[in-house]
Amino acid sequence: MIVRPYPNWLRMMLVIRGSVILDIAPQLIVTIGFAALVTVLRNSLIVDKVHLTFVPFSLIGLTLAIFLGFRNNTSYARYWEARNLWGTVLNDTRALARQALTLVDDHREAPVFVNRLIAFTHALRHQLRGTDAAADLARLLTEPERTRVRDVRYKPAILLVMAGEWLREQRRLGRLTDPLAQAMEGPMCRLGDALGGCERIAGTPIPFTYAVIIHRTVYLYCLLLPFGLADSIGGMTPIVVGFVAYTFFALEALSAEIEDPFGTQPNDLPLDALCQGIEATLLETLGRRDLPPVPQPVDYMLR
Amino acid sequence: MIVRPYPNWLRMMLVIRGSVILDIAPQLIVTIGFAALVTVLRNSLIVDKVHLTFVPFSLIGLTLAIFLGFRNNTSYARYWEARNLWGTVLNDTRALARQALTLVDDHREAPVFVNRLIAFTHALRHQLRGTDAAADLARLLTEPERTRVRDVRYKPAILLVMAGEWLREQRRLGRLTDPLAQAMEGPMCRLGDALGGCERIAGTPIPFTYAVIIHRTVYLYCLLLPFGLADSIGGMTPIVVGFVAYTFFALEALSAEIEDPFGTQPNDLPLDALCQGIEATLLETLGRRDLPPVPQPVDYMLR
Amino acid sequence: MIVRPYPNWLRMMLVIRGSVILDIAPQLIVTIGFAALVTVLRNSLIVDKVHLTFVPFSLIGLTLAIFLGFRNNTSYARYWEARNLWGTVLNDTRALARQALTLVDDHREAPVFVNRLIAFTHALRHQLRGTDAAADLARLLTEPERTRVRDVRYKPAILLVMAGEWLREQRRLGRLTDPLAQAMEGPMCRLGDALGGCERIAGTPIPFTYAVIIHRTVYLYCLLLPFGLADSIGGMTPIVVGFVAYTFFALEALSAEIEDPFGTQPNDLPLDALCQGIEATLLETLGRRDLPPVPQPVDYMLR
Amino acid sequence: MIVRPYPNWLRMMLVIRGSVILDIAPQLIVTIGFAALVTVLRNSLIVDKVHLTFVPFSLIGLTLAIFLGFRNNTSYARYWEARNLWGTVLNDTRALARQALTLVDDHREAPVFVNRLIAFTHALRHQLRGTDAAADLARLLTEPERTRVRDVRYKPAILLVMAGEWLREQRRLGRLTDPLAQAMEGPMCRLGDALGGCERIAGTPIPFTYAVIIHRTVYLYCLLLPFGLADSIGGMTPIVVGFVAYTFFALEALSAEIEDPFGTQPNDLPLDALCQGIEATLLETLGRRDLPPVPQPVDYMLR
Amino acid sequence: MIVRPYPNWLRMMLVIRGSVILDIAPQLIVTIGFAALVTVLRNSLIVDKVHLTFVPFSLIGLTLAIFLGFRNNTSYARYWEARNLWGTVLNDTRALARQALTLVDDHREAPVFVNRLIAFTHALRHQLRGTDAAADLARLLTEPERTRVRDVRYKPAILLVMAGEWLREQRRLGRLTDPLAQAMEGPMCRLGDALGGCERIAGTPIPFTYAVIIHRTVYLYCLLLPFGLADSIGGMTPIVVGFVAYTFFALEALSAEIEDPFGTQPNDLPLDALCQGIEATLLETLGRRDLPPVPQPVDYMLR
Repeated sequence: MIVRPYPNWLRMMLVIRGSVILDIAPQLIVTIGFAALVTVLRNSLIVDKVHLTFVPFSLIGLTLAIFLGFRNNTSYARYWEARNLWGTVLNDTRALARQALTLVDDHREAPVFVNRLIAFTHALRHQLRGTDAAADLARLLTEPERTRVRDVRYKPAILLVMAGEWLREQRRLGRLTDPLAQAMEGPMCRLGDALGGCERIAGTPIPFTYAVIIHRTVYLYCLLLPFGLADSIGGMTPIVVGFVAYTFFALEALSAEIEDPFGTQPNDLPLDALCQGIEATLLETLGRRDLPPVPQPVDYMLR
Repeated sequence: MIVRPYPNWLRMMLVIRGSVILDIAPQLIVTIGFAALVTVLRNSLIVDKVHLTFVPFSLIGLTLAIFLGFRNNTSYARYWEARNLWGTVLNDTRALARQALTLVDDHREAPVFVNRLIAFTHALRHQLRGTDAAADLARLLTEPERTRVRDVRYKPAILLVMAGEWLREQRRLGRLTDPLAQAMEGPMCRLGDALGGCERIAGTPIPFTYAVIIHRTVYLYCLLLPFGLADSIGGMTPIVVGFVAYTFFALEALSAEIEDPFGTQPNDLPLDALCQGIEATLLETLGRRDLPPVPQPVDYMLR
Repeated sequence: MIVRPYPNWLRMMLVIRGSVILDIAPQLIVTIGFAALVTVLRNSLIVDKVHLTFVPFSLIGLTLAIFLGFRNNTSYARYWEARNLWGTVLNDTRALARQALTLVDDHREAPVFVNRLIAFTHALRHQLRGTDAAADLARLLTEPERTRVRDVRYKPAILLVMAGEWLREQRRLGRLTDPLAQAMEGPMCRLGDALGGCERIAGTPIPFTYAVIIHRTVYLYCLLLPFGLADSIGGMTPIVVGFVAYTFFALEALSAEIEDPFGTQPNDLPLDALCQGIEATLLETLGRRDLPPVPQPVDYMLR
Repeated sequence: MIVRPYPNWLRMMLVIRGSVILDIAPQLIVTIGFAALVTVLRNSLIVDKVHLTFVPFSLIGLTLAIFLGFRNNTSYARYWEARNLWGTVLNDTRALARQALTLVDDHREAPVFVNRLIAFTHALRHQLRGTDAAADLARLLTEPERTRVRDVRYKPAILLVMAGEWLREQRRLGRLTDPLAQAMEGPMCRLGDALGGCERIAGTPIPFTYAVIIHRTVYLYCLLLPFGLADSIGGMTPIVVGFVAYTFFALEALSAEIEDPFGTQPNDLPLDALCQGIEATLLETLGRRDLPPVPQPVDYMLR
Repeated sequence: MIVRPYPNWLRMMLVIRGSVILDIAPQLIVTIGFAALVTVLRNSLIVDKVHLTFVPFSLIGLTLAIFLGFRNNTSYARYWEARNLWGTVLNDTRALARQALTLVDDHREAPVFVNRLIAFTHALRHQLRGTDAAADLARLLTEPERTRVRDVRYKPAILLVMAGEWLREQRRLGRLTDPLAQAMEGPMCRLGDALGGCERIAGTPIPFTYAVIIHRTVYLYCLLLPFGLADSIGGMTPIVVGFVAYTFFALEALSAEIEDPFGTQPNDLPLDALCQGIEATLLETLGRRDLPPVPQPVDYMLR
């Protein structure tokens, strides 16, 4: 079920977690403080020389809109593509489990195959987050399997080969004909595509230069802004600058957060929950009824 | 047929249902009331200190456009992808029904298979809406089938396995050769993809932080707006603020509504009608002529 | 060949058909008339109270741009997807005709199969436009075939089943091996996808609420606009309002026209010409040389 | 290799070819001349009545941005899709050549097959440009093959059937098994999809009404612009109008040019070079070393 | 792992590499110098005649936003598509290695096949960058293989044919059945698609005319800008012009850099690292444990 309902419109104004306000607090305080300083000193000699109108901000707004819009859209596209790839992992492990039960003649050994698929999903999660897969693999694999996987660099890729070896064994035993083995190559290849796709997103950030140029433009804009506003709106300057800076900084911070969707920040993908869900549905397909519990969201977000 | 024609351009101004006006009425009244207050007190001491021009709103408009445009496009993309996934459910259940009739040698038992596919679509709908599938399954499945599905967590996934088991049985009886069984794995896998895709959309909302930041920016903008307008347009301020706020709030409300396209709000997907249509065309493919009636739109919308 | 060249840049100013000017004439006349009234009475007591500047229009322009851009892009995406689906119909009927000639051993009976495919495309066109397919089917099908299709609700789906039955018959006669029959399932399934895709576009308009909100915003905007312009540009007000309103109304009208691409308005898909082209190329593939003539555009548009 | 490097930033200001300046010169001269006239007569009685400010242009800019952005994006999408389809032609003719060498047992006759594929690409090019394919076909086909193709309307489609007939012949001779013949149906169908896709782009322009509305809005905008500028920037008016008009007209002209990507204008697809490249790589795959030369760009563009 | 974390927000202001500042320094200095000159001479006779306000820049901003946004989005789309194609190379070489181990009966000769695949990836990299593949091929191929590839024009295409010949040999030896050989045609074809896709991106730049028009508009805009600003913001003019020009020039330079993603500039694709990674994972799949080291980023970028 979707993580809903949201809090009502009034309480939504007061949410802290999920507003990235804490991440951008330092910059925001500096910016507002500087704006207050400029406002107070606006008639002094030094500040008066830095005389601006709204026009420069309107002109720079042009490229800023292109940059921020691009950054935001690209980051979200990465996030959503990553989510789709994990969707593929779910779909194709499920398809393979179904096929192991209905295309292979004797399916008593299907759990061996399915366990390798579950191990694949956990290994993928650990590889993407740089964490240790050993505990999960110990739960799912036999001793010789574990030994084989322990020291390899690309664990999920090897686990996929091991799943393929189970299919080879079934073919050798005459339990799986060649045309049906061929049918199972479809989901096998798509699992490999999902693996490679996740590695691609994790290993290829948005070109660094975008981050640099956007960052500079946003901060220069916000630091110059008080000079353009103080004359016309006076004491409201720090509030308006704070408001503008909040939207800019928040947009930048959120983009940076979801650009790398496999992290563990609040808005990143809930890989733990996804793996748990895949494990549950695969076990249920095998006929098991003692499933792990459904993950519950905390503060409107899953882990 | 498309749900047309729309009412003419004059009557369209007066439609209530489908204008989200009722959903956003409270906020709108508060905002307009506040704007009226500011307009009346605009020469008083307190309000006069909050002196603004249109410039801050033009600057904030930059990020607001990015945010609202993003929210709207993303929500609609979710809506349309969900619709496509249900299109896949239609296409591939139909393809499987056709194949059961033309690739399996003896197709007298095809109704068993097709009933499981129909049960799959109803179970998917109930899972997405969190409602009880029992009544629909009772209509379509035999007692042992029902028993098997009753207590499982992922009902559509199990029903897909059961459809696969029917194919296994046909292969065992020599009615379906392996290459043709392989051909039926294409639609079987795509049905699983549609299932997983729906679960993905239902289970992964747009990152919560977007909703929070957009919400705040929109409401702060509308509450500050009278201070920027009252000086120049005087008594028209509440009307203009109301107009601006209506478009902002409506855009936000509509985005929130279709972001979760499997709900039961007016603009959500008409899952009941879709399921009914799939059931009708599958039954007709089997040669039945006593089809359920075609669903009719009410107030230009299907259920 | 592409429907070109366009008229030169001067004559293009004077084209009537294809400018949607006739569709929006009533609204346009009302709007311009109202603007003229406001301009004449701009110093009278009543109008003077409705005092506006360009600022409100600039602010509302923000959401208006999002709404109109969204409506336009979404409508065109529907139009182009519909065109692609009909492209799929062409491609896969052609592929099936080729396969019937080169994968089936004895291809003397291929015309029966190809006629069912041609009947499928005509039936699809008639279903999408709500017209009667009987005349076209009479031309292409035998009496028993016609009887079977006559009273069904989903004619193209049943015709696809009948095409599948021809393949089943060829397999039964030993003229088509199972692996090659499997190869023909690819185009068969894609034809079914195109059918379902067309039904999806025809049956699921853009959420009605978008149309309502956009409509209201556009018309309120244009009716209020003279109050914002009359002071500064005086007698030019009706002309400028007319120009602005023309672009808005035309964008809305064109979006509404192509949103439902299967209609018979000037910019809708030329389904007649498409069906005729598919029929011609399929007949030519069978070796026929007495093809129907190539459809010719009228006023730069095909039917 | 990519057609680079561009000229440096200074010389780029002076390039003539590729700047569409010649295509839009007449309109540009008329527009600038009219602007000069308005500037000179700006204090005369007639012009003074047409009093405008920048506000109308800012408001119309809203829809203009939507229209021009849409036109540009859509035209480029057509261009790039067309390029992708020709990429598919390359990829799948190559795949078929490889398969003819490695999946068919006796591949001495592969050149017959490959020649039909090369003939297919040339016939596609000629069909899209409305030119005569006879010379290229004479080079590649035997007399009976040529006779068969000479008078047909859809030459590439028939050549694809003839390629399929070669495969049928190999199957009949026992040189190609059914599962491997099935594997070759993938690229065969994708070639047909590329053919149909090119026909779709060539035969379905962007709805004519877009071109009309955009054209009118752009020209009215540029003709009214001097009335809005002359008061404030005086003698600079013709220069600014010329600059604005250049960007608008150039954008429109470029969009119109690449909208029909199969033409022979400077920015259209280099179909000659593409066909030559496909022919070269296919011949090399067959072991030939006397390849046609690599096409070289002239003025940064291929033919 | 993703190349993170970025430097903190303060240090990010000072990064040199990756800010394209060095690439655009000459133009930037010229522009700022010119702006300073105009500011100093703003009351002189000549400059005073070139009198502008912010309005022209706001109007030209319209098309500029369309052009720059288009250029940026298109360039990034090319970059990301190129990255995806290399992802396909990884995925499908991995899939083929897995299949060589699990679908071919005797897999002792799999290294021959895998080496040809590795050679394919290196040859593709060298072809795209116009460098010499000899050293890498010498490492991976036998003498006769090398001789065959040495003088061909399309090396990766021929290496793919040679991979296909290994499969033909396995079929001939009875180690690979036809249905399983067919299953391996999927990844084989997709590798060919990736090859053709890379050639397409490398050989088809964004139409040259876009680059010319955008270039001119940007530079004319920046050179005229001081005339529009000097009156209102005086001595701040060069700073604001420099800021605006920096964002424009940087956006243009970055777009040009990633438009051709196979180059060797800082933001181009790290083809060396990608090839090294593919080689490592393929060797590991074969059971090798002496893998090449993992490439490390320098200044937040891979090579």
